[in-house]
Amino acid sequence: MAAHVAERKAQLEVNILVRDPQVCRSINERHRNCKYFPDHQLPENVIATTDAKAALMGADFCFHAVPVQFSSAFLEEIAAFVDPGLPFISLSKGLELNTLRMMSQIIPKALKNPRQPFIVLSGPSFALELMKKLPTAMVVASKDKKMADAVQQLLASRNMRISTSSDVTGVEIAGALKNVLAIAAGIVDGLNLGNNSMAALVAQGCSEIRWLATKMGAKSTTLTGLSGSGDIMLTCFVNLSRNRTVGVRLGSGEGLDDILSSMNQVAEGVSTAGAVITLAQKYKVKMPVLTAVARIIDKELTPTKAVYELMALPQVEEV
Amino acid sequence: MAAHVAERKAQLEVNILVRDPQVCRSINERHRNCKYFPDHQLPENVIATTDAKAALMGADFCFHAVPVQFSSAFLEEIAAFVDPGLPFISLSKGLELNTLRMMSQIIPKALKNPRQPFIVLSGPSFALELMKKLPTAMVVASKDKKMADAVQQLLASRNMRISTSSDVTGVEIAGALKNVLAIAAGIVDGLNLGNNSMAALVAQGCSEIRWLATKMGAKSTTLTGLSGSGDIMLTCFVNLSRNRTVGVRLGSGEGLDDILSSMNQVAEGVSTAGAVITLAQKYKVKMPVLTAVARIIDKELTPTKAVYELMALPQVEEV
Repeated sequence: MAAHVAERKAQLEVNILVRDPQVCRSINERHRNCKYFPDHQLPENVIATTDAKAALMGADFCFHAVPVQFSSAFLEEIAAFVDPGLPFISLSKGLELNTLRMMSQIIPKALKNPRQPFIVLSGPSFALELMKKLPTAMVVASKDKKMADAVQQLLASRNMRISTSSDVTGVEIAGALKNVLAIAAGIVDGLNLGNNSMAALVAQGCSEIRWLATKMGAKSTTLTGLSGSGDIMLTCFVNLSRNRTVGVRLGSGEGLDDILSSMNQVAEGVSTAGAVITLAQKYKVKMPVLTAVARIIDKELTPTKAVYELMALPQVEEV
Repeated sequence: MAAHVAERKAQLEVNILVRDPQVCRSINERHRNCKYFPDHQLPENVIATTDAKAALMGADFCFHAVPVQFSSAFLEEIAAFVDPGLPFISLSKGLELNTLRMMSQIIPKALKNPRQPFIVLSGPSFALELMKKLPTAMVVASKDKKMADAVQQLLASRNMRISTSSDVTGVEIAGALKNVLAIAAGIVDGLNLGNNSMAALVAQGCSEIRWLATKMGAKSTTLTGLSGSGDIMLTCFVNLSRNRTVGVRLGSGEGLDDILSSMNQVAEGVSTAGAVITLAQKYKVKMPVLTAVARIIDKELTPTKAVYELMALPQVEEV
């Protein structure tokens, strides 16, 4: 995202706050991220730092891409350097374990500023394809229309279409729960159940996410749009995501602990799955597919047994 | 579908009406369809015939799988052998060129019986996976609830979930227009635009089909369900359909005439695309993706130019 903004606005300096000094040097000296995109040249106005204060000083916008479960602790540490008017554009997708908070709640709370401007950016967007400047379409949502418009102006380009929305809840819930559905898609793949099953599963999963989100106040059209079905299809049908990989390995018979200990990146869906059962109960929504994932992760159910259970549900009128 | 029903109801005789005497012999003598599924053993109660009268005599249900554009002529020829109470279960997807009729209109008209019982069967269901008994979920829709329930009873099994619906229009429009969207998906693939583009395109296409269908009286939930988004995702993301192949070849720069003359099967989406512009005008719905496909097929637009046009549309609020 830094590369995209830097490319689009050559007169701006885009600072990336990184933890790893080696990545920092690699970006500043060779204009490459040696860890994630070693083959891609970054624009020269992308500048890395390990110093949060320096990164945030005088910033016009802040893109927040810290994984959800680590966001509160991270933000509390840097809160002192954050201007109370600095717009936070969230790229992180998930719900905080135990509290069930979304990023729109985590950020103002951790920064102790209920009025910190908040925008969520979401939609089907593999980073590698953005780096290659392939056409991509995303949504920015904010309660403050001026903020959504400002971020649209910042990001829209020849290869990037940006729609605006006021439906923060819809965009956030879709982004969080798609990672749980991606695990289910991986399981179907790992069990070799075929494409018919995959399509039925993803369609049902989209409906379950829409039922929950609309009960939480989201607009139905957000869930059937780019940041809803669009992003869900990408995550479920294209085999590149960490969450989907967890599912494939679960479906192939591996144990969750072995899978997680062998991964060096965060699979957000595993944490978010825990929230699904609570949310389904709280909002009185039936979510057979998503709760099955949660039960598989909790080791209450095997993947094979889950499939039999889903196929054996009463065959009913479509609603 | 014959194999599925025959397997499910071993006491029934399932007659298939075929044109090709060689296919007919192969099914009756070796229990194999030598043309389409040479590797699959058919149940012995699947019996082929080239005689329409014999096939229809005493039938309880008729599955209609003749391509849409040939259905009227075919049905007029066999009308004399059709019992006026025989339920027709349509598997054909598309709109009749020029008349824009759907199968629910074509069948009663060609049979000269407005009360011929009609059911449409749809959903994400590659035939090969059905033959392998992989889990599959479909929808049956009929204005007559008793008919929908009867077909559900006929088809539902351990590996086949069947939902019922009264929304014939929704199921038919989704089934017809998904073939046009599949051409668009193929074009994106043929142009190597990447997965982000594909997901954005399919999400937009689903919305356009939903906007049109609901204006034609369909229920929104049909379009977001199995026979809507579910079937669309399968057709667009999994590279097995004839319509998608037409798109891939168009996107790679081949001419439509060369593509069509090299295919020995019908790509229904090419005919249905012609109907899109008329329907979009008639129902006053903006359908930029689907009408672009129609214009590409009419040679008014090249695939590359279509992509630039779509990316250059005003970037607006999501609705």
